[in-house]
Amino acid sequence: MKDLDQARNLAELPTPALVLDAAIVRRNIQRLATYASQHNLGIRPHTKTHKSRFIAGLQIEAGAIGLTVAKVGEAEQLQAVAEDLLMAYPAVDLARCKGLAELAHSRTMRVVADSSFGVEALAAAAQSANSTIGVLVEMDVGMKRVGVATASDSLALAQLIDQSRGLRLDGILCYPGHIGQSVEQQAAPLAAVSVKLQEAIDLWAKSGLSAGIVSGGSTPTAFQSHLVKEYTEIRPGTYVFNDMNIVRGGYCPLEDCAAQIICTVVSDAVESQVVLDGGSKTFTSDLCGPAKESGHGHIIEYPAARISALSEEHGQVDVSRCEKRPKVGERVSVIPNHICPCVNLQDAIWWLEADGSLRKITVDARGKLS
Amino acid sequence: MKDLDQARNLAELPTPALVLDAAIVRRNIQRLATYASQHNLGIRPHTKTHKSRFIAGLQIEAGAIGLTVAKVGEAEQLQAVAEDLLMAYPAVDLARCKGLAELAHSRTMRVVADSSFGVEALAAAAQSANSTIGVLVEMDVGMKRVGVATASDSLALAQLIDQSRGLRLDGILCYPGHIGQSVEQQAAPLAAVSVKLQEAIDLWAKSGLSAGIVSGGSTPTAFQSHLVKEYTEIRPGTYVFNDMNIVRGGYCPLEDCAAQIICTVVSDAVESQVVLDGGSKTFTSDLCGPAKESGHGHIIEYPAARISALSEEHGQVDVSRCEKRPKVGERVSVIPNHICPCVNLQDAIWWLEADGSLRKITVDARGKLS
Repeated sequence: MKDLDQARNLAELPTPALVLDAAIVRRNIQRLATYASQHNLGIRPHTKTHKSRFIAGLQIEAGAIGLTVAKVGEAEQLQAVAEDLLMAYPAVDLARCKGLAELAHSRTMRVVADSSFGVEALAAAAQSANSTIGVLVEMDVGMKRVGVATASDSLALAQLIDQSRGLRLDGILCYPGHIGQSVEQQAAPLAAVSVKLQEAIDLWAKSGLSAGIVSGGSTPTAFQSHLVKEYTEIRPGTYVFNDMNIVRGGYCPLEDCAAQIICTVVSDAVESQVVLDGGSKTFTSDLCGPAKESGHGHIIEYPAARISALSEEHGQVDVSRCEKRPKVGERVSVIPNHICPCVNLQDAIWWLEADGSLRKITVDARGKLS
Repeated sequence: MKDLDQARNLAELPTPALVLDAAIVRRNIQRLATYASQHNLGIRPHTKTHKSRFIAGLQIEAGAIGLTVAKVGEAEQLQAVAEDLLMAYPAVDLARCKGLAELAHSRTMRVVADSSFGVEALAAAAQSANSTIGVLVEMDVGMKRVGVATASDSLALAQLIDQSRGLRLDGILCYPGHIGQSVEQQAAPLAAVSVKLQEAIDLWAKSGLSAGIVSGGSTPTAFQSHLVKEYTEIRPGTYVFNDMNIVRGGYCPLEDCAAQIICTVVSDAVESQVVLDGGSKTFTSDLCGPAKESGHGHIIEYPAARISALSEEHGQVDVSRCEKRPKVGERVSVIPNHICPCVNLQDAIWWLEADGSLRKITVDARGKLS
């Protein structure tokens, strides 16, 4: 809407509008930076959460050693703010390998591999572009999504990378996305990650190869990363904004959630229900992982309400447990379940300073799927 | 990715890529046009499915009487191809009402209302802009999402609209989205819709008000619309492309699905699994309504495979029941569960003619949430 550009304050923003509380974002970034510094860990934030040069710039200013992306299109958008980019995603096809090889002309470009097919495709692209791509072997540490399963498989790939012209063996990457326990219960699963990484590192060493970078990830485990002593760096993404997945998992309090969707109540025609002007095209239909029954987000002003169903543009809210029912035309603020795909649905998001000033932030890498 | 612009044929497209089979789209549009013409029904396609001026243009060429949108931002994008736009969504806030009133200067602009608050907000905006907005009373016919519940409630709103300067009472709108039965079993629930609409029409008539337009919707019920004799027009959206929701609901065969996402296998590191380069940011995480256990879409080349889990950019495929396992680097074609939010995630989609030529289509109204 044209009005979007003219909004001067929060009350004027056409809804639904994703608004970031600047103070909370800065606090989230600083808290992780302090932790990482205390434990001598690098931070390479995953930019899939914000997809924004502006937010990435704040992370770099706070000491991030580089940025993580999932796609070449994201790397292309974010290269302006970082000298060192890691694509934590396998590149096996011509388009991605070629894109990485071209970025590697002007930036330190790194990528993961979990197949010899991928290593060979990367090497061919790097040779063709006459550039050098850094490669990390991706190891599965329990999630069973991508990544080689064993230390010996990791060694075989490391040797292939080491011997490939155009590639530079940079280390090992893992994603402990299977660890969903409470912070207090993470020591044992993180110890298992540590054992698995050390086994690979030792095996590499016997063959004269070293893992200069050992990269871990995930927001739920971020502040326990020191328990994996092999890590040289971490790649959390969600921590910058947080969301109901993180709150209900017990990893942060509600007041650390920086992103809210301001919605308008558009209907109260059905008993014990109101309808918000945000649905799956605003929030995503992702349920809350740790509490699937909790509905599609948390309404700050009506904590007893439950967003019970989403259509594409309608959010149906069960208000039967609320003392007061929101009125048609009233605005409410929703903390989404999963902020990463939610940001990816917005054309623009809003940066709200404590003085009430608003800045429009472009979601630069939105929709960059390749 | 830059390569996207240079792709000359299907094999060169960077993946994931949403490709439309032009012949199937044209056939789907023509089939509904023929049906509607036989039954003297207008078609006002819901453009939420494609959000594209190009596809909307094909629907208008085939005889559509106008277009349906859910948001003012969509109407702004699509006004170039239609003289008559209907926003099938309540407008109650200043931004939306003002946006509609402005569009009404150059187009026939219609919108629904299910609250007196909404009618008053629309009237104020129309008076302020010195334009006329057509309003339809939205009635709930069983879905219990939005819409007034009773004929007498509909009359009260109709009278308010009729008496409001700046508004024009255009009729009644309903969305029978609760009807998910097979086509053979739709006669009874559609008869109930018919009774409810007729009751309101009769009550209006007693007060001297007539419903010039009686607008129904939904792709599952589209070809049974003649069973609701009150309908003057229908607003299906998904029919133009179809998807696994429509196939598994029994409303069309697989060969009527016009949209496929071409994906590349990026990993086979985990036993009995391969990983595709499309996840919830490509497909949406919407499950298949009529078959939740079927996974996140249908892989045409591997019908025994099951897309068992989506992360944001990873599609984990269980291939344990497949005779042959797809190889890393291989491309497969996926029919998504729910094509409407899936298209909304793409920056561009591809129009494939029978001769192999490709045309890039902009998703013009993508992300227009207000």
